[in-house]
This record gives sequence, C-alpha cells and structure tokens, in this order.
Amino acid sequence: MKIAIDAMGGDHAPKEIILGTNKALTELPSLEVLIYGDKEKITPLLTPNSRAQVIHTDEVILGTDEPVRAVRRKKSASMVMMAQAVADGEAAACVSAGNTGALMAAGLFVVGRIEGIHRPALAPTLPTIDGRGFVMLDLGANVDAKPEHLLQYAMMGSIYAEKVRGIANPRVGLLNIGTEEKKGNDLTKEAFQLLSKQEGLHFVGNVESRDLLNGVADVVVTDGFTGNMVLKTIEGTALSVFSMLKSALTSSLKAKLGAGLLKNELYSLKDKMDYTEYGGAGLFGLKAPVIKAHGSSNANAFYNALKQAHTMAEANVPSKIAEAASLMSSTDQ
Amino acid sequence: MKIAIDAMGGDHAPKEIILGTNKALTELPSLEVLIYGDKEKITPLLTPNSRAQVIHTDEVILGTDEPVRAVRRKKSASMVMMAQAVADGEAAACVSAGNTGALMAAGLFVVGRIEGIHRPALAPTLPTIDGRGFVMLDLGANVDAKPEHLLQYAMMGSIYAEKVRGIANPRVGLLNIGTEEKKGNDLTKEAFQLLSKQEGLHFVGNVESRDLLNGVADVVVTDGFTGNMVLKTIEGTALSVFSMLKSALTSSLKAKLGAGLLKNELYSLKDKMDYTEYGGAGLFGLKAPVIKAHGSSNANAFYNALKQAHTMAEANVPSKIAEAASLMSSTDQ
Repeated sequence: MKIAIDAMGGDHAPKEIILGTNKALTELPSLEVLIYGDKEKITPLLTPNSRAQVIHTDEVILGTDEPVRAVRRKKSASMVMMAQAVADGEAAACVSAGNTGALMAAGLFVVGRIEGIHRPALAPTLPTIDGRGFVMLDLGANVDAKPEHLLQYAMMGSIYAEKVRGIANPRVGLLNIGTEEKKGNDLTKEAFQLLSKQEGLHFVGNVESRDLLNGVADVVVTDGFTGNMVLKTIEGTALSVFSMLKSALTSSLKAKLGAGLLKNELYSLKDKMDYTEYGGAGLFGLKAPVIKAHGSSNANAFYNALKQAHTMAEANVPSKIAEAASLMSSTDQ
Repeated sequence: MKIAIDAMGGDHAPKEIILGTNKALTELPSLEVLIYGDKEKITPLLTPNSRAQVIHTDEVILGTDEPVRAVRRKKSASMVMMAQAVADGEAAACVSAGNTGALMAAGLFVVGRIEGIHRPALAPTLPTIDGRGFVMLDLGANVDAKPEHLLQYAMMGSIYAEKVRGIANPRVGLLNIGTEEKKGNDLTKEAFQLLSKQEGLHFVGNVESRDLLNGVADVVVTDGFTGNMVLKTIEGTALSVFSMLKSALTSSLKAKLGAGLLKNELYSLKDKMDYTEYGGAGLFGLKAPVIKAHGSSNANAFYNALKQAHTMAEANVPSKIAEAASLMSSTDQ
C-alpha cells in the first residue's frame, strides 16, 4: 500500500513528519511511501528504507497562502505533487500537516470528488472521557450545508467508524440545541427527517454539544460552520481550564507539593484529551483517502495520521462510500 | 424599585428563591419585592419585611410544559402573574428561575417588545479567566437570525455592558469561525459589514469561540442556534474536564494526599468558572428587565439575578435601548 506524504507541511516540518514516517515504516510492513519535499533536509532525517522514496521539490504552500490560488499556481508544491501522485494512481492515499484550506482545495481539484457526493467533509476523531472517541463531520470543509449533505455525512461517517474504527453498527447523532425531534433551526429539523427515514443508518436522534465528550454517539453530523465553532469551543475551553489549573497548582509552596504528588495523574489527564492519538482529520467524499494531520503534529501524531490513511486505503473506504452514494441516489429517484 | 419574583420556578424552589430574596432585601435598601407563589410554603422561609409582599397562587408552569401554550393557558401561574405585574406597571422588572422557553414567551406576550426591536435576545454574562466576564447574545431566544438582528443585539449588549456592568466603551465582537473579515457563512459576512458601519459601536471584528474565555470582547453577538450550541459546549467541556480531574485526584492514596494539599486552589478554580456569580441571563429588547436565573439556582445565584434586575431597572436600560433603536431606525431611512 503506497502512500504519498507532504514532508513540508506543519509547524515542525520536515523533522517530525519524517520521524513519524520512520516509525510508520517500522510498524507497518506493508507500507510504502512517496515523500515530497526538500531532499537535502529530508535525507538526513530519514532512516534508509527500500520502501521509502523521496521526490525533491523546493516549492511549499505556506500557512498564510490563499488556499485555492496556492493550489492552482504552485503546481510543484510538495502538497500539490503529493495529491497529484494520488490522482495519477501512483499512491493510494495521502497525508499532509500543512494549510488545511489548501489541502481541501488540493483534495477537491486534484484528487477529485466521488461521483454522487455533493460535498466532501472534514472529519476528525475527537476524544471522549471513556477513550472511545467519536467521528464528527463536517468540521469546516463547507460553511453552509443542506439537509441532504448532512445525510451523506452520516453515511460517510458510519462507513468510516465501522471499517476503520471497528465499531459495529455505529450510532449516528445529529448535533442540535436540544434532543427533542422538533428542536433546532430549519436545517436540523429537515435533516432529522431525512436521517430518520434512511435505511442502513443507526440514527439515534439529536445530540447536544454538552454531551459530546461523554460519547453520546460514534458519528456526529453537523454543518461546517457549527462544527468548526464547536471544535474550537471544546479546544478553547479545555485549554482555559488547564491553564487555570496550572496557575492554581503553582500558586503556593503547598500547592506545588500537592501538584508534585499528582504528577502522573495530571499527565494522564492531559493524554486523555490529546486528540493527536486519534490520528488526523479525514477528508471524506474524495476518490482516495486524504488525511489532514494536525498543524502542530509531532512524530507520534503524524505516525497516527499515516496509519489512519493506510487503514482507510486498505479497507477501501472511498469505494464503500461510492457504492453507498450510488445506492442512496438510486433510491432518491 | 419594586421587582416581581416567581417563587416557584427552578430546581430548588421555593426555598433557595426565598433565601436569595431575603439576602437581597438586606443588601439592597431600595428594593421592594412582589413574590408570586404558594403562600404556605413561602411564608415560613421569608424573613418578615415591610418591603416584601406575597401574592398567593397555586398554579405553576413546569419545566416540561410547552412554553407558549403554558403561558397562554395558565394565566394564574406564578410566572405569568409576575410578568403581568410588570405589564401593569406594578413592578419595574421581574426574575424567574423557571422554564426558559415559558419565560421568553411571557416576556414577549405579557411584558412586550420594545418598539423597533425586531427580536428579543437571551443574554447571560459568561465567565472569563481574568474574572471580568462578557455578555453574549443571543443564546437561544431565536434560532434563526438576520444580520440586522445581530446589529441590534450588539447595540443592546453594549448598553447593558456600559450601564449595568460599568464597562466604558465596551468592545463588541462577532462570533465567527475565523478572525478575517471574509470568514464565515452568509449571516456573519453580512453582519460584519453592518457592524463595521454602525456609529457609536466599538466593534472589534470577528472573534473565535476558542478565545471567548480569554476575554476577547465585552459583548459577543451571534445567532441563537450558534450561541446556544457554544454555551452548551463550554458547559459540557468544563464539566467533562472537571469530572476527569476528579477521578484523577481520587485514583490513588498518593493522589488523594496531593489533592488534599490543593483543596483551596481547586475550590477557587471552580468558583472562577461559576457563572451564577455573574447573575442570570437577561432577556434584552423587552419593555422592562426580565431576568432568567439559572434553573439550578441556589440562594446566592438568585440573589445575584435579583440584584441584576434591580440595577437594570435603576439604570433604565430598556428606555436606553428604546432610544438607541429609534435612532438606528431613523438613520436606516
């Protein structure tokens, strides 16, 4: 299984990207990689391996680049070449920790959308208290969404949860401001009806954002504006609470002593909230798996994203989605 | 300043409601109250005071009641009688910890909307790390909103922040999924333009949900669906982190010892996140202050909500809003 890698994207590129790739090559015997980026910087970091090939390029898409324009103009940027390798059939999937907007554009314009899928969706796996996690989509690939888009998100998320995360009959929830059927805005009310009627989906109804971290569903669907808002709220709130906790724990000598005794527990708490353990965010609805690793990815986070791309490709997730999409559109008629 | 109180609303009614009222009567010498509810239950709890009058009624709006229908049919429910006292000019403001939807309906149908205000908005004050707090609206009075509604929310929030919270020239932020001007959905893009052009507003641009608890603005405006979603996400995330923290702190003898040393710090941390300290949620845009105290209000939370209603009435916030609304509609033409 050959996977294309953008070695130049992310805050700690290429170092952590290549260290994560080294780990993946050791752990996954069937993995082969095509690494795109600055050969001079990559080679000293890469553990020599017959399953790894470096393709040199100087051009890089920056975090500050306007996404669509960058993808259209920087044809030899590491991210675009990586996507092109997938489009050309040289690689089965691709992974980048670079500019999210640019990766979505590269996914859409270079890799291409699955026929019958209206909109691709950005779908990370978020942590829950019990460590099980859940897939949430769309987290911002499209700001506005229609009810039928949410239905497709549900289908794509279910396939992913089952085939990649190994969850049988995954529970699908619709993110809403109340659990009752009639709650919400026009979008959620109509989406509720569509989701209820759809065969083959284990729809558990509306779920509230305050219950997300308790694992109320395995797949949570929402429009990209709301999803992005909720993701950033979770991140911001958790960071704020941890930062207040940190100042509380260092506010006096007695507190510092107490914190010393709690060191292990506090670290394990932070690990629990660490979503890099769950891999990157998938761009669902494209012809091949395209994974966005977190911008601040360290080697382990990138390794997990790479493993995820590998599993998605091995499980043929895109063709499963294509089958389901054609089935859904044929029952539409 | 006479304020009407629904003694029967909330999880701990009437006990905590009356204990909070007792405290307010002691602390605020100019406060007079009209207390609506079950006289037999209220009288033993109420500290006798010439400034307090109890008006007996058996009828109560329940948390499970359908809001609009309950307000229309239960004319002698404590909440409806309380709102009626305001409509009749017997009280200058009112406070309830009962059914939020019913209170919004009572506010709209009994107290009435200020002329020129398109939609009332639910506006709590939320905590920030520095303890300053911020007003956010709308948190769910209307699920769908138009750009001009958000402009009015900004105006109402600014008046409140200045007159009641004592913040000069309050910073107004538009909740969005990015700080750049062109980010967001159709609603936020259009609202950004309206807010930028409005004279007399200190608009600081888009703010992201991850920065809310850092105090990025004094007034944050958004549509009711998004606002409600974000509020519940903040609550849910903070609760989840605290619950994980609690299990970490009791996971071993050593951890328990450490936690013992940190007792004071951990309590003060919880206090910081305690938004009952900031009073209840105001229903802005009505002819008189209508305050929703938190459903789980204890005596102190209800006291704070009552103090807030008192300050709003003394500062004439509704007439300030009415003036600003007529000014805005005259410049519209």
